[in-house]
Amino acid sequence: MVIKEYVTYNQVHKLCQEAAPRILQDFQPQLMIAIGGGGYVPARILRSFLKQPGAPNIPIQAIGLSLYEDLPSTTPSGLSTPGGEVEAPGTKVTRTQWLDLTSLGEMENLVGKRILIVDEVDDTRTTLEYAVKELEKDVEIASQKLGFKGEKTIFSIFVLHNKNKEKKGTLPEDMLRDHRYLAARTVEDVWICYPWEAKDIDAHDELAKTQAVGS
Amino acid sequence: MVIKEYVTYNQVHKLCQEAAPRILQDFQPQLMIAIGGGGYVPARILRSFLKQPGAPNIPIQAIGLSLYEDLPSTTPSGLSTPGGEVEAPGTKVTRTQWLDLTSLGEMENLVGKRILIVDEVDDTRTTLEYAVKELEKDVEIASQKLGFKGEKTIFSIFVLHNKNKEKKGTLPEDMLRDHRYLAARTVEDVWICYPWEAKDIDAHDELAKTQAVGS
Repeated sequence: MVIKEYVTYNQVHKLCQEAAPRILQDFQPQLMIAIGGGGYVPARILRSFLKQPGAPNIPIQAIGLSLYEDLPSTTPSGLSTPGGEVEAPGTKVTRTQWLDLTSLGEMENLVGKRILIVDEVDDTRTTLEYAVKELEKDVEIASQKLGFKGEKTIFSIFVLHNKNKEKKGTLPEDMLRDHRYLAARTVEDVWICYPWEAKDIDAHDELAKTQAVGS
Repeated sequence: MVIKEYVTYNQVHKLCQEAAPRILQDFQPQLMIAIGGGGYVPARILRSFLKQPGAPNIPIQAIGLSLYEDLPSTTPSGLSTPGGEVEAPGTKVTRTQWLDLTSLGEMENLVGKRILIVDEVDDTRTTLEYAVKELEKDVEIASQKLGFKGEKTIFSIFVLHNKNKEKKGTLPEDMLRDHRYLAARTVEDVWICYPWEAKDIDAHDELAKTQAVGS
């Protein structure tokens, strides 16, 4: 039986609120990259809590990534396709949107910036691995174009929930070592029901309440 | 005194739920364009309610637009700047992100598609005017490149709230005439407090509840 965990909007809101001081202190992000669709809501909420008096909002760029569990693989693993897709055993990430560097103004190059990647859940880690690797590639290209070295771009990650399970994807060692990965909650390998997927939000909230009492 | 109207997450959720059948029936969108940051949350919720059994999710592209009320204008009105900004009397819209057409796959050209633009509020209408005009320009360029005529791209708009006030921006006549503009609620010119901006979400919900009883 798959255990379901129901999360209310207000719980999501409070998870972001709770994480914000540490994000501000440790990551000091200059740009958020929201992985859509799940990252849209936490990223928007986080923006409110990361806002500093007198400073502008931290800009958000949304990227769209879809994870498909493949049918038994017929292509070599690790193969990159022209469409920007990466095949890995059993999984495939497809881009539906990527960065728009032309609109970022002085953020136009990501080089030397502190960037917070936001998603709702770290399940198999496949999507996060893809996001970090592809963003690092973009930074590398931009860095070469600019012809300077030494400006290190710092990626950090915030997710609402990290599932305590074996991961298919990996994140850079230094990111984990330097604690630039923050999950508001670590949970077992349960089915997390986010409120934006609820067909009946009142029933959803009731189920969440029952859980809170029972746990 | 500015009247504040507090809206809870669950109310936002239900506004999207309520609007979804009409959007499916009348607009039949093939792509959503979420105007960030305010459009992120309703767009993500809407996606759940627009999902048809057996069909993939409707893709969302996020664009980022910021509206600044100008200081007394020192530039001619209507002036377009290289950065993609448009100056209008008293207002300025700045792009922080635009479409990523390269990742849209078969949606690569917007030509001939039905596109739903999503934002949280229609206040002065300046942002929506900018979005529609700029998207229409993109479609026009794409249409010319493709060298065919007759494939009409249909834009529609969904907002949670439309403020009943004099608008600075205008929308295409045919969009309004053909009812391709849907506001879940039309409200007076009040200050709408969305939940994702709340510093204290419990207090926010209490204020929303008090309003509901009082109204």
